[in-house]
Amino acid sequence: MGNYTITVLPGDGIGREVTDQAVRVLQAIASRYGHSFTFHHALVGGAAIEAEGDAISDATMEQCQRSDAILFGAVGVPTKPGTNQQIKPERSLFRLRKGLEFFANLRPVRPFKALLNASSIKPEVLQGTDLIVVRELTGGLYYGHMEPGIPGKPSEIRETDKGYEAIDTLLYTEGEIERIVRTAFDIARGRQKKVTSVDKANVLSSSVLWRRVVDRVAADYPDIATEHLLVDACAMHLIRRPSNFDVIVTENLFGDILTDEASMLASSMGMLPSASLGTRKTEHGIFGLYEPIHGSAPDIAGQDKANPIAAILSAAMLLRHSLSLPREAEAVEAAVEACINEGYRTEDIQEEGKKKVGTQEMGQRIAAAV
Amino acid sequence: MGNYTITVLPGDGIGREVTDQAVRVLQAIASRYGHSFTFHHALVGGAAIEAEGDAISDATMEQCQRSDAILFGAVGVPTKPGTNQQIKPERSLFRLRKGLEFFANLRPVRPFKALLNASSIKPEVLQGTDLIVVRELTGGLYYGHMEPGIPGKPSEIRETDKGYEAIDTLLYTEGEIERIVRTAFDIARGRQKKVTSVDKANVLSSSVLWRRVVDRVAADYPDIATEHLLVDACAMHLIRRPSNFDVIVTENLFGDILTDEASMLASSMGMLPSASLGTRKTEHGIFGLYEPIHGSAPDIAGQDKANPIAAILSAAMLLRHSLSLPREAEAVEAAVEACINEGYRTEDIQEEGKKKVGTQEMGQRIAAAV
Ligand SMILES: CC(C)[C@H](C(=O)O)[C@@H](O)C(=O)O
Ligand SMILES: CC(C)[C@H](C(=O)O)[C@@H](O)C(=O)O
Repeated sequence: MGNYTITVLPGDGIGREVTDQAVRVLQAIASRYGHSFTFHHALVGGAAIEAEGDAISDATMEQCQRSDAILFGAVGVPTKPGTNQQIKPERSLFRLRKGLEFFANLRPVRPFKALLNASSIKPEVLQGTDLIVVRELTGGLYYGHMEPGIPGKPSEIRETDKGYEAIDTLLYTEGEIERIVRTAFDIARGRQKKVTSVDKANVLSSSVLWRRVVDRVAADYPDIATEHLLVDACAMHLIRRPSNFDVIVTENLFGDILTDEASMLASSMGMLPSASLGTRKTEHGIFGLYEPIHGSAPDIAGQDKANPIAAILSAAMLLRHSLSLPREAEAVEAAVEACINEGYRTEDIQEEGKKKVGTQEMGQRIAAAV
Repeated sequence: MGNYTITVLPGDGIGREVTDQAVRVLQAIASRYGHSFTFHHALVGGAAIEAEGDAISDATMEQCQRSDAILFGAVGVPTKPGTNQQIKPERSLFRLRKGLEFFANLRPVRPFKALLNASSIKPEVLQGTDLIVVRELTGGLYYGHMEPGIPGKPSEIRETDKGYEAIDTLLYTEGEIERIVRTAFDIARGRQKKVTSVDKANVLSSSVLWRRVVDRVAADYPDIATEHLLVDACAMHLIRRPSNFDVIVTENLFGDILTDEASMLASSMGMLPSASLGTRKTEHGIFGLYEPIHGSAPDIAGQDKANPIAAILSAAMLLRHSLSLPREAEAVEAAVEACINEGYRTEDIQEEGKKKVGTQEMGQRIAAAV
């Protein structure tokens, strides 16, 4: 029995709907296991730009800092005319990730047996797939972005005498690479003891350094099998032989692309949770941010169509990593699997002969199963 | 009846074996249609580094310039001890692409009906897939690479007082973006009239400029439907709804990753050809370089296991684009399809009940079918 503080940042579009269901499931956990969760809701993304003039306010950043964990929905919608169009909803994510140093983004992919047929990939190819992508989250081409005009590290559009040109900078320090790579090797120790490092070392200097650091760190983990794979080859092997992977570690943008692709192994983006972890420990566990890997999907927002499972499984990761409640995390995961096994399906994972439900009903059923 | 000069650069590993078969098929075309093809062979990649001290010599570059087209195999093998390890086999590709201004890399993906079951993706998902990726080939993160030390555009590893750091630069000018985007729209006119532009405009400045140029060019093509898709979403949709795409246009590295992924739609990398075209016209057509999208695969080199079809279909693209011989190109494509329909399969596309053949036999059978 414990007291925990969770900042809830639903964001835009379906972010709100799915986060509501994740909170509902956490409440079910609280009452079943006798915990007390205090939820602080705040705005991020387009909603925050419209109401508070920034994609995330300083007050919200401070609120996040004071909590044990952050439950995040999704951001990214066109804001109302009259709003400052220079501020992008995504800025909230970048500020949270960079400002709170969440450098390690964990994206596990383990398709549920009952969903093997719902994927566009053949069930016999999916069989046995259980991998986790460890994505670096605070370096690479994404930053530049936040610090325009920093010399030597530009991300900008500029006018020349031949018209416009645009530049982005991909920078990694040895230290940044080393900490994410060590995280991956540590995770592999508790799994199948295999690390696949993904880079583009035949083209990029940053990948050459990346590979060098991986080889150095690998020497400290003689019990772990290490392989290097080029990002293009990885994009192929992910759907050709997904069950061969255990832990995949890669830089920010490669991780972004590969995990969206990998979501197809689990049949839908609506199924994949993520945890973003840093170095800070709270009283209860590792301070972290938890979000579904899908976006705000404005096209289906407000229609009770979104799949809340990715958000709910993100809440399970929150219980495990930030609150150190593994039994409760497993209870959530088991409840999700039970509802899937009983045949409940949101639209994105619908198959013939299954019971189609909306966002709310799926959340209610999972909460009830807890 | 015409006289044509083709420079053949087999390169490393299976590059040599598959190029031999492509040449064999071109010879069959020459004798059937009464053309005269003069083939000049030269070294590239690891083979050239060992024999000539560079991944491609100046003499070979000049030979390429003097020909109507270049047939390229694959490069990339560890070179012998004692060879200069600073020179990478890939340098030959970068020098050819950049030096000869092959800015437009066309990678068509149209799975053969008889191979729909050989893919790891479900046949009902593949049904109707017929797309082409138009990849920008001379800009972005790849360059930097060739010009170390150019101010403002670094690609390097450097020592700082906190250890090493590495930097790569992603630069695009408006002009570079515009010419590849126009190429894509022109191609779409002869197809299903739909262009999907892929970028990461929620993060990269270069993508913001990219999107702006696409919108401007699109206004000149009111008959073409245009959509923007983020690269992460595209990696997902490519395997979820591949038949929705017609022409995909994207920058260099995104194109590299997405086409390797897309090769799975055609069941194997061994099936996908490519053409790299520039602005120069020869007497006969557009000067270009033709290569399978697969690599040198040192693990299976010299074992008569490689699939020569990607190289042979690249030769068909050569006939079409550089020699302006569309009927001959179709004859090659029909011969490939006939052999597939007769049940001949190399190892990578092998299925139960089909006739397994080696690299040479596949080449012979396709040449015979011409
Ligand atoms: C919204 C976007 C900036 C973000 C990213 O690219 O990191 C998203 O795609 C993700 O994967 O979390
Ligand atoms: C060999 C390598 C440098 C090359 C690339 O990345 O362009 C290859 O992957 C390709 O797609 O042609």
